[in-house]
Amino acid sequence: MRNLPDRVWRMPQRQEDDEAAGDGMGRILALSDGVFAIALTLLILDIAVPAMTSNDELGTVLLNLWPHYLAYLLSFVVIARFWVIHHQTFRLIVRDNATLVWLNFLLLFFIAFLPFPTAVIGAHEGSAAAAVLYAVAVCLTGASSAAYLWYATGRANLIRPDVGRGQIRAMRARSMSGPVFFALTVPVAAFVPYVAEALWIFAFPLARMSFVWFFDKESDEPG
Amino acid sequence: MRNLPDRVWRMPQRQEDDEAAGDGMGRILALSDGVFAIALTLLILDIAVPAMTSNDELGTVLLNLWPHYLAYLLSFVVIARFWVIHHQTFRLIVRDNATLVWLNFLLLFFIAFLPFPTAVIGAHEGSAAAAVLYAVAVCLTGASSAAYLWYATGRANLIRPDVGRGQIRAMRARSMSGPVFFALTVPVAAFVPYVAEALWIFAFPLARMSFVWFFDKESDEPG
Amino acid sequence: MRNLPDRVWRMPQRQEDDEAAGDGMGRILALSDGVFAIALTLLILDIAVPAMTSNDELGTVLLNLWPHYLAYLLSFVVIARFWVIHHQTFRLIVRDNATLVWLNFLLLFFIAFLPFPTAVIGAHEGSAAAAVLYAVAVCLTGASSAAYLWYATGRANLIRPDVGRGQIRAMRARSMSGPVFFALTVPVAAFVPYVAEALWIFAFPLARMSFVWFFDKESDEPG
Amino acid sequence: MRNLPDRVWRMPQRQEDDEAAGDGMGRILALSDGVFAIALTLLILDIAVPAMTSNDELGTVLLNLWPHYLAYLLSFVVIARFWVIHHQTFRLIVRDNATLVWLNFLLLFFIAFLPFPTAVIGAHEGSAAAAVLYAVAVCLTGASSAAYLWYATGRANLIRPDVGRGQIRAMRARSMSGPVFFALTVPVAAFVPYVAEALWIFAFPLARMSFVWFFDKESDEPG
Repeated sequence: MRNLPDRVWRMPQRQEDDEAAGDGMGRILALSDGVFAIALTLLILDIAVPAMTSNDELGTVLLNLWPHYLAYLLSFVVIARFWVIHHQTFRLIVRDNATLVWLNFLLLFFIAFLPFPTAVIGAHEGSAAAAVLYAVAVCLTGASSAAYLWYATGRANLIRPDVGRGQIRAMRARSMSGPVFFALTVPVAAFVPYVAEALWIFAFPLARMSFVWFFDKESDEPG
Repeated sequence: MRNLPDRVWRMPQRQEDDEAAGDGMGRILALSDGVFAIALTLLILDIAVPAMTSNDELGTVLLNLWPHYLAYLLSFVVIARFWVIHHQTFRLIVRDNATLVWLNFLLLFFIAFLPFPTAVIGAHEGSAAAAVLYAVAVCLTGASSAAYLWYATGRANLIRPDVGRGQIRAMRARSMSGPVFFALTVPVAAFVPYVAEALWIFAFPLARMSFVWFFDKESDEPG
Repeated sequence: MRNLPDRVWRMPQRQEDDEAAGDGMGRILALSDGVFAIALTLLILDIAVPAMTSNDELGTVLLNLWPHYLAYLLSFVVIARFWVIHHQTFRLIVRDNATLVWLNFLLLFFIAFLPFPTAVIGAHEGSAAAAVLYAVAVCLTGASSAAYLWYATGRANLIRPDVGRGQIRAMRARSMSGPVFFALTVPVAAFVPYVAEALWIFAFPLARMSFVWFFDKESDEPG
Repeated sequence: MRNLPDRVWRMPQRQEDDEAAGDGMGRILALSDGVFAIALTLLILDIAVPAMTSNDELGTVLLNLWPHYLAYLLSFVVIARFWVIHHQTFRLIVRDNATLVWLNFLLLFFIAFLPFPTAVIGAHEGSAAAAVLYAVAVCLTGASSAAYLWYATGRANLIRPDVGRGQIRAMRARSMSGPVFFALTVPVAAFVPYVAEALWIFAFPLARMSFVWFFDKESDEPG
């Protein structure tokens, strides 16, 4: 059966083929957008008020949930950023193949996994184990985000022909910033978890804000 | 690396660019529709019958869940209304940029958050803390809904060129009604939570119904 | 502010307007498909094995969950049928307006609600209260499904001009079969819940199968 | 009413009909992608850290969750593979009918069901009952995946006219590999559950990797 697939799935050469390829791409993006949207929304399920809470102590209980709110905010921004990179990269990709589909599934695997470390760190905000789990999970997500970008812009050459070498080099360099940053915080998380959490929460939005501020001046850039 | 993004993501000028811009827009809307749809559907997960309930007392238990049903109905209408505004506004938006994407994520952040205050107010229907949390959450959602509308119709000028100034002024004014109404109910919620809840439940559908009734007479209006 | 909406949201008359109307329709369908897909998938969350179950008794516990499996199957078929009707009806609808959007939200409200009565009847399979809740919920879902169909084919006249009066009459009659059947089972559910559940489980798939069998002979019919 | 459907849903013959058929297809794919995306993402909800866990023992508790991680990985790959087959098959299908819609719902029924056996096997990794449930569930999912493929390529003839007989035979043979493999592991699961679980975890990714490796050399194949 090893020799079947190319016979089985090779498309006949027809005029509609380009269009059909676009349809295939559309479903990859639809599935990815679905997983991103659900991962973003499931994060909130991790936050719950204990059933036995009385109305009198509800205010205090709600305020004491602050580590959950922070974890929710952090993971929402993390997943949103991976979506933005996905969105920008797939604008340049014009063809797909089986490897791209499975590298994309690798990314979706880690995106769909992120609500779990978010729940753990929300419930155990000062724990080294929770912080290491979170850093490793985001690092692996970032690595798989870089993987499909490197593959598509590399030998597979699935991108639009008019994208220059310099632009590709810059995209590749940029895709490494997330996984490298979170890899560097793994040892920090192991020894001083609160410092790692502060690094993620403060350094990350700062980078975001400077990025948004930069784009804001060039408001004709596609998002 | 601060100077990279414009080199990295600038699209080469080509014929297909307008179409590509539309595709990018399509994914923003697909992700948003996904988050809206999931938030609408997750609301029901907050309602559960205690596992130990016997068949005899099930009827009473189901009736006693009425604050949950009301909270479900209220939040469903709130989220649906934000979707309708999103739907109407993005019909006029023809281009996107990074700021619009992140302002849209700000809205989705609060939309995805709403199932939590809904669950809290469903379980604690007479509590000031629950009512204040709910009012603040909807108010912030409304403010972020207004934010992307003001941004897109403002200096960024991402809308269709044939939309007049008067129409923009009216849209902007209208976008403030939700957040202002919920901001005004925050002090009410803090002191007489039941009154705030009645205001949301009765005043809100009334405004909706009069709006729907109005449109009904002009059934050729787009929804 | 009562007079604003028509000024605010009236589209300028342009060539692209028809296309824009189609886009708006596309988002209504995307949101609806999202809610249908999530409601179908959330049903399974109601089934859970008690955490304390030992490996030895797991087989027995899994078999004793049969009312949950039946409730899952029943509600999956019910929601799937509402999707098929939605799919067939919206193929004929070419325009939307605010009333259609809100009637569609009314349907989505009940579709998103269905996982709750499904969970209740799965946990309390012989209870009159659970059976009445289920019958009423499906009946209201069917009524709102009929409502948007009657509205769109009625005075609002949002359908394709080449759909004949006879066809519309047949569609309207057919849309009543679901809510009427479930309304008739409400008194049965109140007095002999097991009989009502058997009616839903056996009568419903039988009608489905005869319908599918019928279509199977005419396999060129659109689904 | 038995004779209504063909009168009710028969489309008038018009120029736009092909386009309308494509739209109908689009919604079937949108609903399917939604269910696949949600099933992929709901898998993680099965993994939770006990609420009482202290920070000190959190690391041990997280490591002891390994059967859950394995079950999550396994089911993610299983569902992803069914999506890839769905994606490849529907690229060849140009028309739909009611039977295809309901056969597709049969597949979605089992896809949406898979998070349940995944949770059971994650919590009871050495249990024969859990392993049998898992093998049977995946086997039935595979059988329904084969069913719509056999139907569409068979007498219903819903595929593109230029797809050759040899290609169809190869697709049909390939669609049987999944259900046959899992059917063969049912007796293994009943007597030596750990062996069945190892077969799924090791044999399955190996087949995957060799498949991906194969396609990688032919990177111009559509995925």
